[in-house]
Amino acid sequence: MKFICSRDRLTEAISIVQKAVSTRSTLSILDGILIDVTDKGVQLTGYDLETGIEAQLDADALESGSVVINSKLFGEIVRKLPEEEVIIETDERLLISIISGSSVFSIKGLSAEGYPKIPEVKDAEKIIIMQGILKDMIRQTIFAVSTDESRPTLNGCLFSCDGTNVEMVAIDGFRLALRKQQMGMDLPIMKFIVPGKALHEVGRILGGKDTELIVYSSVNHILFDTGKVRIVSRLIQGEYMNYKSILPKTGETNMTVSPGAMLSAIERASLIILSEDRRCPVQLSMPNDETLVISASTELGTLREEVPVRISGELIDIDFNPRYFIDALRVIDDGDISVQFNGSNGPCIMKPLEEEDFAYLVLPLRR
Amino acid sequence: MKFICSRDRLTEAISIVQKAVSTRSTLSILDGILIDVTDKGVQLTGYDLETGIEAQLDADALESGSVVINSKLFGEIVRKLPEEEVIIETDERLLISIISGSSVFSIKGLSAEGYPKIPEVKDAEKIIIMQGILKDMIRQTIFAVSTDESRPTLNGCLFSCDGTNVEMVAIDGFRLALRKQQMGMDLPIMKFIVPGKALHEVGRILGGKDTELIVYSSVNHILFDTGKVRIVSRLIQGEYMNYKSILPKTGETNMTVSPGAMLSAIERASLIILSEDRRCPVQLSMPNDETLVISASTELGTLREEVPVRISGELIDIDFNPRYFIDALRVIDDGDISVQFNGSNGPCIMKPLEEEDFAYLVLPLRR
Repeated sequence: MKFICSRDRLTEAISIVQKAVSTRSTLSILDGILIDVTDKGVQLTGYDLETGIEAQLDADALESGSVVINSKLFGEIVRKLPEEEVIIETDERLLISIISGSSVFSIKGLSAEGYPKIPEVKDAEKIIIMQGILKDMIRQTIFAVSTDESRPTLNGCLFSCDGTNVEMVAIDGFRLALRKQQMGMDLPIMKFIVPGKALHEVGRILGGKDTELIVYSSVNHILFDTGKVRIVSRLIQGEYMNYKSILPKTGETNMTVSPGAMLSAIERASLIILSEDRRCPVQLSMPNDETLVISASTELGTLREEVPVRISGELIDIDFNPRYFIDALRVIDDGDISVQFNGSNGPCIMKPLEEEDFAYLVLPLRR
Repeated sequence: MKFICSRDRLTEAISIVQKAVSTRSTLSILDGILIDVTDKGVQLTGYDLETGIEAQLDADALESGSVVINSKLFGEIVRKLPEEEVIIETDERLLISIISGSSVFSIKGLSAEGYPKIPEVKDAEKIIIMQGILKDMIRQTIFAVSTDESRPTLNGCLFSCDGTNVEMVAIDGFRLALRKQQMGMDLPIMKFIVPGKALHEVGRILGGKDTELIVYSSVNHILFDTGKVRIVSRLIQGEYMNYKSILPKTGETNMTVSPGAMLSAIERASLIILSEDRRCPVQLSMPNDETLVISASTELGTLREEVPVRISGELIDIDFNPRYFIDALRVIDDGDISVQFNGSNGPCIMKPLEEEDFAYLVLPLRR
């Protein structure tokens, strides 16, 4: 195996596939990156048996072959090489030479035969989507994915398509984030649950608004293909929670507020709420229909702050976990939002005022 | 106690004095910052019983008094305040109000009576030195301060003045860093050992080349005074190692090299040397008088690299802990350096070629 490539491109490709390299694995081959040189080019692979990432590398492929190299060491070495041109080759004992300028590294490799195969996504349905749109959809839902392993279906986002709209939903038992996107095309009908970790990595590699991405899904796997990078993940099996019945259509109290003003006040309140203690709420109250009072009180002290709002309907007092408001307010890009309350113990819905694409439901803490 | 000040200046003053706030203390008052308002102004203090930092704050002092507030919470709150103007006041129950815009925090304070007094530096000798010069002197020696607590005098830098020159020295048993500065003034003769931690904090607050700093020393304490900020530290008592006899005057092998080229080659070598294992050396060898070969070999693999040099005298092979070369090469600013070797087991001296202000001695690893 032998190829010549650019240090900076190789560094970039390594850092992409490293995201799927297991750091806690006990199998040393899974700590590695698979390097594959064929007549089609050079490909790097990282795979932790759940998420696999393959990156194509612009390189001069001089001799076919493959080898596995320790991911961390490979990344550190390449980043520090003295010259932009890098030559990488293996000998028959799997010793990997990394040559740049007068620097010659020889690193022990492992046989590619022992490296697990990333599943092929066969008999797949496909959707073409702009990278920027999918990136936003992930950003606006992923924070509500549950980490509670006792309900595995909630450890991913439900990704569904009804033929013309794509929808992503995440629920953790206390809140729900929903993002719709009108596609206006004739799309296949699909519904599957993508693990949060895979979506997190997809969100990181996605680029600009004007670049396409193809999503393929089979019964058990999903493949996100940007052309240069492919991310494969297993799907979570099981029936997702029937969330449509949870979302109330109207609210008893309707409030309009600037998300930035509400976010910074709740962030200040969270400073005096011990983060581990979910029982300490941020308290919202409405002395009149133009004022929201945000307050918090713990053994450290108190905060009281007023935010200008417009309220119609009943004026109520209600308690929340500040984290749940902060996560959602951070992903609303601009414009005022509407917050609908349903009494002090009912669910609260947050939506951008001007669009119907995003909705966020959060349950209050009972008084 | 009451004063009005700017959020950004207060944030800055808090972050300066926080460096001296103990983070592992079991006395909760030492987790705090002392706020003192007098008719002279507002002062913040952090003190971990070894290093104390006082910062003057530009503020409108409206009512004298003092209080102690939890350092971490105070810093987080002030940084997040909504408006640039901040009002801080205490009531008779030591409840501290922090008011900015419509935000009103009330935080429980502690009585300033329980806060330890920072020692006064009495009957002091003094030296005036440019901040930029002292900052460089600290940077070029502090990395060689020993952390081995069994030899307390080596846990600090020796700071001495012979009347016209100031000198700083640090030794950790394997290496020595020495920085001289000609002052050309009539200075007091002084010699004392400053703890590494205090010097580290002094290095962080020092500013530009054209600003003065006054250093006061008494028998037991040292005070660095920039006008705005004062850092007080205890001195380390005891006799410092007699290092003048250690420094060889000449070398059996003299090498001239670019510090940047040598640094990056040794950094690459260190990638394959397990950092915890001091027995794994970086190996230097000299196949001819124009080439230095830097190599390393561990169970991970090998590196071999050539650096262009000019050598006079005996061509030798010698082994070093790469860390010791990296630390010194990083603080040499520019120009080539001279490296003097004394056989494979003798001390090696590194100096800038063009100046006599800095010298670094390192012991090789025995073969």
